[in-house]
Amino acid sequence: MGMTAKLAILAGGGAFPALIARHAHESGRQLHIVAIEGEAENAVEAYPHDWVKWGEIGKILNILKRQDCRELVIIGSVSRPDLSHVRLDFGAIWNLPFILSLTVGGDDSVLSRVVRFFEEKGVTVRGAHEVAPDLTVPRKVLSSRTPSKEHDGDIAIGFDLMQALGPFDVGQAAVVSRGHVIAVEGAEGTDAMLERCAGLRQWGRKRRTGILVKCPKPGQELRVDMPAIGVRTLEKAHDAGLAGIALRAGQVLLAGERGELGRRADELGLFLAGVGAR
Amino acid sequence: MGMTAKLAILAGGGAFPALIARHAHESGRQLHIVAIEGEAENAVEAYPHDWVKWGEIGKILNILKRQDCRELVIIGSVSRPDLSHVRLDFGAIWNLPFILSLTVGGDDSVLSRVVRFFEEKGVTVRGAHEVAPDLTVPRKVLSSRTPSKEHDGDIAIGFDLMQALGPFDVGQAAVVSRGHVIAVEGAEGTDAMLERCAGLRQWGRKRRTGILVKCPKPGQELRVDMPAIGVRTLEKAHDAGLAGIALRAGQVLLAGERGELGRRADELGLFLAGVGAR
Repeated sequence: MGMTAKLAILAGGGAFPALIARHAHESGRQLHIVAIEGEAENAVEAYPHDWVKWGEIGKILNILKRQDCRELVIIGSVSRPDLSHVRLDFGAIWNLPFILSLTVGGDDSVLSRVVRFFEEKGVTVRGAHEVAPDLTVPRKVLSSRTPSKEHDGDIAIGFDLMQALGPFDVGQAAVVSRGHVIAVEGAEGTDAMLERCAGLRQWGRKRRTGILVKCPKPGQELRVDMPAIGVRTLEKAHDAGLAGIALRAGQVLLAGERGELGRRADELGLFLAGVGAR
Repeated sequence: MGMTAKLAILAGGGAFPALIARHAHESGRQLHIVAIEGEAENAVEAYPHDWVKWGEIGKILNILKRQDCRELVIIGSVSRPDLSHVRLDFGAIWNLPFILSLTVGGDDSVLSRVVRFFEEKGVTVRGAHEVAPDLTVPRKVLSSRTPSKEHDGDIAIGFDLMQALGPFDVGQAAVVSRGHVIAVEGAEGTDAMLERCAGLRQWGRKRRTGILVKCPKPGQELRVDMPAIGVRTLEKAHDAGLAGIALRAGQVLLAGERGELGRRADELGLFLAGVGAR
């Protein structure tokens, strides 16, 4: 079983919690899932688990202690809970200054404070990419199609743009076509941005042109907030008439197996590439 | 009638050509409108005018010569003509190298080449802001409401963002709320960007927060491509739940009279401010 500490997975919604549990389990790690009610999917019940409610911070801490989990992965989507309906347990009230600190400031700093909170309790917070590196984008092309020289130019513009946007804490993704920035992701998310590009296809584009780039914002807390793409993003990129997708290698999570996503890209006529930082 | 040269207005669609003709006429200028069929509104017929078709470059040059117009304003929206249906006249064929040069490169450079083309024929291209300065945003607040300190912070972030995006030739506008960039305008245009922000209001915003900033891209050719806002933009900003609009003074056209737009902003509960460069 190796020397690594037992892993807890604090599971929100979507496929990632179970996917990461499987990868961690297959790599020989002992694990215990702490599943958030109303968020986590039932698939997580395939592993040792407990269900908790929003606000039951005392219960979460007790589970981690009882299960002797000294490492924690926080993963999955969360709806923004209506704070007036969250029932705080005794542990939460005990940690009220922490809870209150979450209600001020931006999203990124909330996540950093969550990490700090657990680490102050002696639990090391790990990123999904650390416990399941196979789920990140490798530095290679996953599809049969490869980027052309024109696409390489668009990809470089896209990653440069992401870098320039760094100080503004906006945008994990952009669409670039033949040297022109077509769309920059704001609060709407990658899929909604791609839908809007589909509406712009009338702009005289006949063959597939343009690429989606996706990468973390500079300074993004990858341990709790990592960009991800799955089959739906591939399909939206196809519908937008794009030629392919370039992801920052090692820094974007794949919601599925690499081979599977590469095959889906092939079916859709897209390239899907992991690109290293220069 | 003063010493200024007679002004030609090459009129595309929308309200601007007639609006600019009125302002130029009221300031005492002689003018002649060259209206593009299928684009310009009938309102331009209130002034001396000729109608031309897409591609009738020879005819346009002849009109300018016959009317002795040594200054030209190019203004109004244009649909992208289907080149296979444009009938080039003799003057266009004579200037074929120029026409062909328009088919390569990005939008901005096309506009710069159009300016150069007319100037090589001895016609000075003027910006709408030069012949009708009253139609640009003044450096003051046009509404009864004024930006709060929070809004001032968001406005500063917005204009800084526009500056940072300069090298990427994208975005004349952005939405910023409480220190966060919510949306960056891409190819979709300002009104579509605001519509998307309306869809994001569920993100816990109850009172009006957030601002729209709009300004030219750094290096934008203001003589032929100036950002503009009108009543519709005010209404979309209202629907998006924003608190107000900040425009770069002197560099954004108002599609209407200042007082009228200020009153509409008041009705919608928005501030509308012209902000100078720092």
